[in-house]
Amino acid sequence: MRRFVIGSARNLIESSRQKYQFERFSSSYRFLSSSPAADSPSSSSSSTMAHLVSLSTINPKVIECEYAVRGEIVTLAQKLQEEIQTKPDAHPFEEILYCNIGNPQSLGQQPITFFREVLALCDHPAILDKSETQGLFSADSIERAWQILDQIPGRATGAYSHSQGIKGLRDTIAAGIEVRDGFPADPNDIFLTDGASPAVHMMMQLLIRSEKDGILCPIPQYPLYSASIALHGGTLVPYYLDEATGWGLEVSELKKQLETSRSKGITVRALVVINPGNPTGQVLAEENQKAIVEFCKQEGLVLLADEVYQENVYVPEKKFHSFKKVSRSMGYGEKDIALVSFQSVSKGYYGECGKRGGYMEVTGFGVDVREQIYKVASVNLCSNISGQILASLVMSPPKVGDESYESYSAERDGILSSLARRAKTLEDAFNKLEGVTCNKAEGAMYLFPRIDLPEKAIKAAEAAKKAPDAYYCQRLLAATGIVLVPGSGFGQVPGTWHFRCTILPQEEKIPAIVTRLTDFHKSFMDEFRG
Amino acid sequence: MRRFVIGSARNLIESSRQKYQFERFSSSYRFLSSSPAADSPSSSSSSTMAHLVSLSTINPKVIECEYAVRGEIVTLAQKLQEEIQTKPDAHPFEEILYCNIGNPQSLGQQPITFFREVLALCDHPAILDKSETQGLFSADSIERAWQILDQIPGRATGAYSHSQGIKGLRDTIAAGIEVRDGFPADPNDIFLTDGASPAVHMMMQLLIRSEKDGILCPIPQYPLYSASIALHGGTLVPYYLDEATGWGLEVSELKKQLETSRSKGITVRALVVINPGNPTGQVLAEENQKAIVEFCKQEGLVLLADEVYQENVYVPEKKFHSFKKVSRSMGYGEKDIALVSFQSVSKGYYGECGKRGGYMEVTGFGVDVREQIYKVASVNLCSNISGQILASLVMSPPKVGDESYESYSAERDGILSSLARRAKTLEDAFNKLEGVTCNKAEGAMYLFPRIDLPEKAIKAAEAAKKAPDAYYCQRLLAATGIVLVPGSGFGQVPGTWHFRCTILPQEEKIPAIVTRLTDFHKSFMDEFRG
Repeated sequence: MRRFVIGSARNLIESSRQKYQFERFSSSYRFLSSSPAADSPSSSSSSTMAHLVSLSTINPKVIECEYAVRGEIVTLAQKLQEEIQTKPDAHPFEEILYCNIGNPQSLGQQPITFFREVLALCDHPAILDKSETQGLFSADSIERAWQILDQIPGRATGAYSHSQGIKGLRDTIAAGIEVRDGFPADPNDIFLTDGASPAVHMMMQLLIRSEKDGILCPIPQYPLYSASIALHGGTLVPYYLDEATGWGLEVSELKKQLETSRSKGITVRALVVINPGNPTGQVLAEENQKAIVEFCKQEGLVLLADEVYQENVYVPEKKFHSFKKVSRSMGYGEKDIALVSFQSVSKGYYGECGKRGGYMEVTGFGVDVREQIYKVASVNLCSNISGQILASLVMSPPKVGDESYESYSAERDGILSSLARRAKTLEDAFNKLEGVTCNKAEGAMYLFPRIDLPEKAIKAAEAAKKAPDAYYCQRLLAATGIVLVPGSGFGQVPGTWHFRCTILPQEEKIPAIVTRLTDFHKSFMDEFRG
Repeated sequence: MRRFVIGSARNLIESSRQKYQFERFSSSYRFLSSSPAADSPSSSSSSTMAHLVSLSTINPKVIECEYAVRGEIVTLAQKLQEEIQTKPDAHPFEEILYCNIGNPQSLGQQPITFFREVLALCDHPAILDKSETQGLFSADSIERAWQILDQIPGRATGAYSHSQGIKGLRDTIAAGIEVRDGFPADPNDIFLTDGASPAVHMMMQLLIRSEKDGILCPIPQYPLYSASIALHGGTLVPYYLDEATGWGLEVSELKKQLETSRSKGITVRALVVINPGNPTGQVLAEENQKAIVEFCKQEGLVLLADEVYQENVYVPEKKFHSFKKVSRSMGYGEKDIALVSFQSVSKGYYGECGKRGGYMEVTGFGVDVREQIYKVASVNLCSNISGQILASLVMSPPKVGDESYESYSAERDGILSSLARRAKTLEDAFNKLEGVTCNKAEGAMYLFPRIDLPEKAIKAAEAAKKAPDAYYCQRLLAATGIVLVPGSGFGQVPGTWHFRCTILPQEEKIPAIVTRLTDFHKSFMDEFRG
């Protein structure tokens, strides 16, 4: 069985957990090791092993790390996909529907034209002066490409940049943050990264000294956090989101978990907040955010704000507020709170996952610690320039009056309104299923419905050596080709079962998905109902 | 003073080192910490600190890590550059010449047209069908872009790919390796990465369990290795390249250092070989490589082969041989040797540093360990798609008969022959300087001349609290605008001093650089000659 909390803090939440809850695709790894090859012809002592390096001799933190979003269920899905390709009638479905991961363009979402025009022109600036280019590209994309090239020393888009990213692009991003928040942003606080994940790793690497250092993470959480904490040898300190209040984040729960972990000798360094929520889809209210900021300030915690879904809000009663804006509106500045905001080009209406662009805005750290962050960034030289350019574009899209503004805003609004409709349709469909309840997707790209499984289904899962939600998801995949991620991959209140479903399949496919899901669920419940 | 070898192995080579040798730009970090702000108005205990997070509370491995290539000398250079921009006559030179880092396009090298055409078309596939595109792009770049798009599920260049990279691109790369080596390559062995650096980190993360695990690294070495070993908490076990024999790699030296470190309780996991050498520019002879492979096999070491300069060989008497080819030609297969080869789009004649593309070919590891590497790759989702595409292009450039072949090969040969001329000119210039000797740059992008400094200069450096070679480089920068990296950033035999100089400034600038360097050196020696 796999564990969620690492090292000496292993007991912290163990008592409150059921035995299946944290089983994952990697559950069988720990005890495997390559077997000695008795027939090895070599006389060398080392080559009596089948392979030199075995599970028993690699870094145990790597083994400890788990990442369910691309875990066992996806490996199985890839296998089924290959089978369908070679034998189209091998399974009772024609295609695999990947609802496991927030990867919009893999499901047919089209990129924003303006962004791609600028990227293409920056990739091949030699065509900027050609007459044919005027016919192929919008005038403002050509102008923007020139602006960006002029910000790059020597116009060299193939050169390593400054370790934090190209200064002119950071200027643009800082200006975009100012427009968003109404408070100043400093380009020297921006670190451009290959997506948000490496930025999260950098902060974990900085803050975690040993298993005695804890990071407060929501449960359910996006498993990047548990994986990164495991890889860096720290302790995940869980706080539970309240499903009954729409995945509410209660400061009383934060306090309780902080105190419990402190009593176990854990030094809690930081609080991770994912807003809008992943996998839970909630959008925090501003008052709630103020209480969280106050908590971090009082308790001396770094606030790690995962704000990659800042453009993905679907309900009129909620609005995204950055934690930086909230902090500054409370009068808290550099000396009051240490705050890191993560942003990515992979989410929003742009969904440019494959470009690996993103940034973190680092505030409230002293010059000496900032130099250390810079040094770690330097070891990897810089993030990729296309991703850097795209990060500047998403924070500074076309404006009213620009040639591309109308097509840009039509593309953006089309994607966001469609996502909102898909979220609602899927939410309603889940809520109609026997034993399933699903909170509203206020934002992000996911629904995280709860499923009350019959006792017989739980027993069948036990016999199959699976967590009950993993068992459900595997049966669903085999019957329908729909790929969901079991809730155990994200963490959940012991004894409850969930799965995460993205809202990303194209709209014309949603009715068929709902039908297949509904039919499967009915037959599953019929099979196992007591 | 900063240390090179970490943790309990600290004493391993300490005795053989002079007190200045490993001083670096970060030398003052360890003892700094943010001072308490007595005037803090807050009642919270944590906010009595000026900042919440201080050097005394971050991960000491981060502080331990060093990266001289972007260290103090570059920070100083950037400051001078800003001063020149605001006040052109502030210094006795008009521009900063960055010879510190292998970043060809930052110094004016032009990208290969065909590669950029394909990248632009893949970034904006909407133009592939337009008639204007025929006039702007070569026919084979259009064809290649279609081929690549057809290898990407849904032609979605904005989607996360398979965690190891797009399968069709890995097929292309494996085919390119087969053409290069004459031995089979398996696309499932290829892990595409954002440049070679993250691949090196992944292997260090996998192999290093504690400070008791050692990695054999050349001295001088590219500081990525020392930085990565420090960040992952392992021990760098040095082996010295023999400057007298053109930076020869002697197996007797490997054995000696291996035994010494084993006697200190270090488990040596792997041997790093950089071929062609960085910072030393040598190209290994095939017989030498065979002896190295045999050594790794006998001693049970993973061979980590940094082969990113495989296209950069400038002398007719030397040829690049991959360690995979050498191993296979010796009859050693999967079960005999664990070998990881690193390749990058940043080097070669392409020099596409900003694209952050690269791959590692992982052979000789069992399925269970490979699954762990896959899992760690999955946590970061995938490397950037443009970099992936470019990695496939450099391993499969235009062929005879393709429309672009002539222009492509003219560009490639122009760059490589110019690099060879520049290497020779700079090598000759260094060898003419008083007290300087410089080995031949057979390959890679660097010269690493040795400088015998007068006793008075060493005393002056001591007074300035600098390593003597760092002192020389700072004086050179202040006088000429030329940025070199002191040898102490790479490691060197105690009591010897060096600096690394790239061969990358454009050819028309080389005469002026030689003149400036020669004049500076003469006046420096005049100042300090005994």
